[in-house]
Amino acid sequence: MALPVETFFLHPDAQGTLQQQIQQMIAQGILTGRFGTGEKLPSTRSLARHLGISRITVTIAYTELLANDYLTSKGRSGYYVSENAPAPPQFSPAADTPDAVDWTRAIGQRFSGGVTPVKPQNWGKYRYPFIYGQADPTLFDHANWRLCALQALGQRDFTTLTTDYYDQDDPKLIEFIARHSLPRRGISARPEQILITLGAQNALWLTAQVLLTQRRRAALEDPCYPALRDILTQSRCHVSPVQVDHEGLIPDAIPDDTDVIFTTPSHQCPTTATMPMQRRRALLERARALDALIVEDDYEFEMSFLKSPSPSLKSLDQDGRVIYVGSFSKSLFPGLRLGYLVGSEPFIREARALRASVLRHPPGHIQRTAAYFLSLGHYDALVRRMSNALHGRRTVMEDAIKANDLQIAGRGAYGGSSFWMQAPDHVRTEDLAVRLRAKSVLIEPGAPFFNGNAPPQNYYRLAYSSIPSTQIAAGIAHIAQEIHDMG
Amino acid sequence: MALPVETFFLHPDAQGTLQQQIQQMIAQGILTGRFGTGEKLPSTRSLARHLGISRITVTIAYTELLANDYLTSKGRSGYYVSENAPAPPQFSPAADTPDAVDWTRAIGQRFSGGVTPVKPQNWGKYRYPFIYGQADPTLFDHANWRLCALQALGQRDFTTLTTDYYDQDDPKLIEFIARHSLPRRGISARPEQILITLGAQNALWLTAQVLLTQRRRAALEDPCYPALRDILTQSRCHVSPVQVDHEGLIPDAIPDDTDVIFTTPSHQCPTTATMPMQRRRALLERARALDALIVEDDYEFEMSFLKSPSPSLKSLDQDGRVIYVGSFSKSLFPGLRLGYLVGSEPFIREARALRASVLRHPPGHIQRTAAYFLSLGHYDALVRRMSNALHGRRTVMEDAIKANDLQIAGRGAYGGSSFWMQAPDHVRTEDLAVRLRAKSVLIEPGAPFFNGNAPPQNYYRLAYSSIPSTQIAAGIAHIAQEIHDMG
Repeated sequence: MALPVETFFLHPDAQGTLQQQIQQMIAQGILTGRFGTGEKLPSTRSLARHLGISRITVTIAYTELLANDYLTSKGRSGYYVSENAPAPPQFSPAADTPDAVDWTRAIGQRFSGGVTPVKPQNWGKYRYPFIYGQADPTLFDHANWRLCALQALGQRDFTTLTTDYYDQDDPKLIEFIARHSLPRRGISARPEQILITLGAQNALWLTAQVLLTQRRRAALEDPCYPALRDILTQSRCHVSPVQVDHEGLIPDAIPDDTDVIFTTPSHQCPTTATMPMQRRRALLERARALDALIVEDDYEFEMSFLKSPSPSLKSLDQDGRVIYVGSFSKSLFPGLRLGYLVGSEPFIREARALRASVLRHPPGHIQRTAAYFLSLGHYDALVRRMSNALHGRRTVMEDAIKANDLQIAGRGAYGGSSFWMQAPDHVRTEDLAVRLRAKSVLIEPGAPFFNGNAPPQNYYRLAYSSIPSTQIAAGIAHIAQEIHDMG
Repeated sequence: MALPVETFFLHPDAQGTLQQQIQQMIAQGILTGRFGTGEKLPSTRSLARHLGISRITVTIAYTELLANDYLTSKGRSGYYVSENAPAPPQFSPAADTPDAVDWTRAIGQRFSGGVTPVKPQNWGKYRYPFIYGQADPTLFDHANWRLCALQALGQRDFTTLTTDYYDQDDPKLIEFIARHSLPRRGISARPEQILITLGAQNALWLTAQVLLTQRRRAALEDPCYPALRDILTQSRCHVSPVQVDHEGLIPDAIPDDTDVIFTTPSHQCPTTATMPMQRRRALLERARALDALIVEDDYEFEMSFLKSPSPSLKSLDQDGRVIYVGSFSKSLFPGLRLGYLVGSEPFIREARALRASVLRHPPGHIQRTAAYFLSLGHYDALVRRMSNALHGRRTVMEDAIKANDLQIAGRGAYGGSSFWMQAPDHVRTEDLAVRLRAKSVLIEPGAPFFNGNAPPQNYYRLAYSSIPSTQIAAGIAHIAQEIHDMG
């Protein structure tokens, strides 16, 4: 039987080259059983004419499918579905009946219902995206990343790409972090003191599991990164929210029975406060007095374009008391899922064993690509380019905020990529965000950052990491107008 | 000051092109502070002569470093370390003093000390690697994987590459699994019933966390996959080892108070037993009688080259009782870290929330690359090629095992990639493995697969997924000889 040419059509939203679309169309027809073994494909000429594309494109697609054994050719008579083509499913799928399982009982532990807000995936479609933490396509060094990824896909790196490392990491990436990234933060660490993680999120999660139990107490900043609150809630430890001021976490406010202190000294999340040296020393003193550990999330230290970053807490730590969390998510891109933990060996050993049980190791290809990108100097060039751009945007932001009489509640002393903003008391920023969306403006309401059941409702975060300079003034004006209209 | 040309040398073990090595050498000199701002680099001519390489190579490396702002050029006078180059560390790293922290007390939960054996990373250097679960470079379709990865790195996929998906996955990969992979196992699932995981390991871990507590009981096969035992030990649930025979798990041996049953019906790990249809139905009956859930690890179903694979348990399940674990680690490569969970929506919802807290999502680039590789038909072609190769090797294995009078304790009815072997009672296969290593033969001792404190010592696993056919006979002969010598 010949397959009628009419069953083939190009999907208007399809991605990939025309050749790939044809390959996919035929492979999927075979895999779903719509095209049977021995059935004859339309000739390259007729399919090309039907789809309105070049015949050579169809011929190349057919040749690929021949090579992959989906098709056979019988001399000049044409192309047929191969006998060796993968067989369609032999069993009819079961119908979708209601479960006999009582899931309320069957689920032993619940993890849904956290407080981490979900941001719109299509933020790029908004005209004024004051959104935090997504990669800006105009700043990212896509070309060199691609080259490094390609190199990491080469024959020479076959083992790195494919191997099961069990609990280990790519030695090249570890070496670069130890020899180049950490010295810049004043940290000296041996490879056994470093663990690669799936982003800072994974680093914080692993740390919480190893250090906290139901009988221990964690102190965390209030307001803070909401996903950290979810992690601590799931670990079922006691949690003490500790106030922050314009210098970050207040050491004296940390309760006496605290075991682990989570802090973001470079740019407090979300107020962006930078902790001065004196406060850093006081925090270390307080931790020593309590015999507590400190987990230092050093995110965004690279974005210190106003002044050089302060030494990390870890670099001031003589006791092995500080566990350091680094991340490439902000400086490269969050979809990379690559961060690292630095700490004393007994701690890293447990975190490594847990990571091996949870997921083995971050994919080898990702680790090697990052190692190349870092070691060839592209990373530093990228950070400098991003810092320059953020510096420029920040100035435009400040001018626009001033011109529109909006109120800044917190700003990083050294840089960063956002302002923490305060609207008048009567403005619920959740409502403000909804109203602004309709005007193609994205802002982040502040309430989810706060602990407790009655968070302040009038804060919001304005990031400038993804919005072009030219859009800032108009975006800020929209915000001011909307706040005015809510007055 | 001019940097003397003598400070430059090419490391004999260095990877990458010469141009990249020069770039790296200079970037690292600057980053570590060895080369200071304004210092003059050797001329391209003298550096090329010194290193014995082409001048154009040096020129291109310098030009790259110019573009990245590591170097500046002053007309014809040469290249200098740029003022804009990244600064070396400003703080001297703290010396490595003993910790003041008492880690015995500070660590709340221990995860080290598991039973999962670590395999040699350099297995490729062994002449007779009867090693399990690593990618065979001679079988993997490296060229097409590279092409798909490259496509997934394109501008069009920038968002997929870089974005923070929060708790979501690449819709293209989910769609392919739902429409093409699962129907082949007789499974029909909606996107909300599928979760992408970092390999099967991560899928099993997530499942254990959601379903098990300290008050619940898991039944697992004895012998079984050691990493699953580690996962269950860490979850602190009650664990019942259940005997397997040549048809896999024995349903009647599952204790009455079991909540969750873990099983590997396609190829029991490690005995490779294939569960027949009748046994599958009996297992489902037993689970229903207990109102227990079943976690079906369907690894290696693709390698059913002797007969078509049996329908999955999940395809026979009318109750929503079966949670299905799929993996691309065996059929693609383990370093990919990509698998998936299929189950009822209430279960997947909790697993998704937990995954988001632990690691957010598997890297976007990996997901999209796999989606392309699958949808273009390369995956099916690869599986067919691997199946053919494994079929051939298995025949050679069987002949050699017979010729050398070794004893097979378990073999997959439909295929697989290993034999489960039994040595004479007095042979400790841990010792056998050590002795064989000296002869460049790698085997896997069987004891870690068993539960309990007194595992049988005389079993071992022989995999043929990474050893060329031509090496098999000699390798088996070495094993027979060594067993004889231990007699």
